[in-house]
Amino acid sequence: MTAPGADTQHGIRRRNLARVLGAVAADGPVSRAGVAARVGLTRTAVSTLVDALLRAGLLVETGPAATGGRGRPGSGLAVSGTGPAGIGAEIGVDHLAVCAVDLRGRIRARVAADAANRCSEPGPVLRRLAGMITEVTDRIAALDLRPAGLTVAVPGLVARGTTTVVHAPNLGWRNVDPAPVLRALAAAPEPLTVENEAGLGALAELWLSGGPDGGGAPPPDFLHVSAEVGIGAAIVVGGQLLRGVRGFAGELGHVPVYPGGRPCGCGARGCLEQYAGEAAVLRAAGLDPGRVATGLDPGRAAADHPGPRARVELLARRAAAGDRATSAALRDAGTALGIALAGAVQLLDPEAVLLGGALARLTPWLLPSLERELTARTALAPHAGGAPRIRVTAARHGGDGPLLGAAQAALRAVLDDPLGRSWTPAVSRQLSGE
Amino acid sequence: MTAPGADTQHGIRRRNLARVLGAVAADGPVSRAGVAARVGLTRTAVSTLVDALLRAGLLVETGPAATGGRGRPGSGLAVSGTGPAGIGAEIGVDHLAVCAVDLRGRIRARVAADAANRCSEPGPVLRRLAGMITEVTDRIAALDLRPAGLTVAVPGLVARGTTTVVHAPNLGWRNVDPAPVLRALAAAPEPLTVENEAGLGALAELWLSGGPDGGGAPPPDFLHVSAEVGIGAAIVVGGQLLRGVRGFAGELGHVPVYPGGRPCGCGARGCLEQYAGEAAVLRAAGLDPGRVATGLDPGRAAADHPGPRARVELLARRAAAGDRATSAALRDAGTALGIALAGAVQLLDPEAVLLGGALARLTPWLLPSLERELTARTALAPHAGGAPRIRVTAARHGGDGPLLGAAQAALRAVLDDPLGRSWTPAVSRQLSGE
Repeated sequence: MTAPGADTQHGIRRRNLARVLGAVAADGPVSRAGVAARVGLTRTAVSTLVDALLRAGLLVETGPAATGGRGRPGSGLAVSGTGPAGIGAEIGVDHLAVCAVDLRGRIRARVAADAANRCSEPGPVLRRLAGMITEVTDRIAALDLRPAGLTVAVPGLVARGTTTVVHAPNLGWRNVDPAPVLRALAAAPEPLTVENEAGLGALAELWLSGGPDGGGAPPPDFLHVSAEVGIGAAIVVGGQLLRGVRGFAGELGHVPVYPGGRPCGCGARGCLEQYAGEAAVLRAAGLDPGRVATGLDPGRAAADHPGPRARVELLARRAAAGDRATSAALRDAGTALGIALAGAVQLLDPEAVLLGGALARLTPWLLPSLERELTARTALAPHAGGAPRIRVTAARHGGDGPLLGAAQAALRAVLDDPLGRSWTPAVSRQLSGE
Repeated sequence: MTAPGADTQHGIRRRNLARVLGAVAADGPVSRAGVAARVGLTRTAVSTLVDALLRAGLLVETGPAATGGRGRPGSGLAVSGTGPAGIGAEIGVDHLAVCAVDLRGRIRARVAADAANRCSEPGPVLRRLAGMITEVTDRIAALDLRPAGLTVAVPGLVARGTTTVVHAPNLGWRNVDPAPVLRALAAAPEPLTVENEAGLGALAELWLSGGPDGGGAPPPDFLHVSAEVGIGAAIVVGGQLLRGVRGFAGELGHVPVYPGGRPCGCGARGCLEQYAGEAAVLRAAGLDPGRVATGLDPGRAAADHPGPRARVELLARRAAAGDRATSAALRDAGTALGIALAGAVQLLDPEAVLLGGALARLTPWLLPSLERELTARTALAPHAGGAPRIRVTAARHGGDGPLLGAAQAALRAVLDDPLGRSWTPAVSRQLSGE
């Protein structure tokens, strides 16, 4: 009978446990006093919460840690390197990948393979992915890690609150739910979620770029543009992903840039994807998208890179070598991206734009025309520090973002409700008093 | 030393008081048991909170009220018709208006006047507005109401967290802070805030459309397009206004629709405002924007309507009379709006689009071409209930939205922290235990 918004003792304890775990994960090693200062609770309250997290195996004691300048150094706390791990899986148009990430944000296992998933039957793709998930969960079991959940990244629209891929144009999938197959074949860890890859790429930037060695964390309000074969975007506001009522927000690839222009597969004309999408750029560079695509060997295993990205590499090499058609193609793509992003910046007023996925690799050749267009179209008012333009940079994780973001998303259940699930069964039930 | 996110007893009590007051404001008259069911607290806890709100004069007891179907009817609660009132003020390009709204959402006083504010000196405009504010606060004092705050709606960019109008192109204002003048001349009620009119129009739809006689409240995720002389928009996500890092989100008028097209005052080409803004539509309809504008008499008082809107009325009358040039102008404006909105819908995935301000009046002539464009460009995935198109409707409050939203925004300090301020000095300090 309790409404979701109401404050209950149980809900407050859960949020405070999450705050303490989050503070240690972000800033550890850190003392109890340092945690107290960060989360705004008394040292006594923090000590009680820390004890519960230590007993559950989510935190460990390290050596002395700085308190933040005052008093003697306390005992240091860090998140555990064993315990729960998030499993991320990625279904790309020409690759599959699975990885496991621990509470410290480190990749502990990873498998990847080339794949010809364009216009594919879902069954064989999902069966192959299930095998890779099993391989990763077997590997982390040997490292004393337990899977805390599985998130699958897909290049398509996922209906909010469901695991159903409503439409993934480049896979050729409509209304496909990967969950039953993965559950049946891979003993997939729960909770199992399916998410759009662009959103997960943005979350990877947000969650896995901070901390002592992270550097360059994005601001809490940014736009993350992601391109593999299609173009997607993610809107992050106040550190939260803006999902849209149906879960379909961020469809930058179908924002009109030249409204009377080229016909698009979506039925409209002049969509961004027809000017800055992979096929459009390859074609403008004088390459045949179909022939480049079929040059892949779907059987070749690739254990430690997340997919071939062969076509993007080809464009980058040609542009770097000074090929004029390729340079012109990327310049025009940058112009189209700049027009679409100008509209997005006018609407959303973010602090930064990050170019992720394949775009991260191509940033040097896209950026000049993109920034020229964006600056000219957003000159109404100054940006941060009086700057005449908004900051546009390559995303830190590039093409790895969706996979890493998926693994991190799978860990959120633990980070948001540290003692809420029985992944360390006897202990956590006892500690949470349920 | 307490971080903003931490849960303290004081913070919890404040939020629960706000929930109870909000539930009664939205659904009253309602019994204590009804409130308890709505806010998810025990009846005992709700009774204590209600007593505090009754003593502070924010709630009143009415006759018997339904409990929601079970048990005998309890004593009904309603928000007070005396007590705090929010003061809203609006600086339009060709009008000024001030009103006062009580906790029940009723307008208790209102003054409005034509004004020639285009490319104006801020001083005289603000002095005139100050006189109108004083008139309204004098009037409500006679009704036993006390001003709880003042919000000023402006057609321009307001830097987030400040009262400074960074740029209001149609007023010709840059870096104007209305607060000092209003404080000096009008004994303006505090807190005094200044907000973009499009955002306030959206909040009026959200806050003042529900309730028993409100009908047709918008969903919590919608896009509100607002036009007077310029075109702005407000993005509402989960019932909250998306403001942007600088406070400049929603600049739909400068979203590119025909990127190589007409030059815009902002320095770019092909902005929406050049195709669907008032001047563009008047010109396309064969009218001279300058001549129509100067037909106004700035000295004429208009006590009970919020401004002349003469030019919009002229367009509506001509279109209704079947004038071909006007119909074509509005059709083309609808097409441009549809292109810009398609991009916004692809990015934001809202549940509905509301056309406010002058657009509300012109909806019948804009909508066919707008919807045709929007539907064709957002056909990738079905909308609510499998509908092929997103719902586009006229906003309930139309041109009154910004003024009503401003008054309601001024009341938020009371609604969010009912006993936090000393607007009923002795009583509230005593009750909040401070």
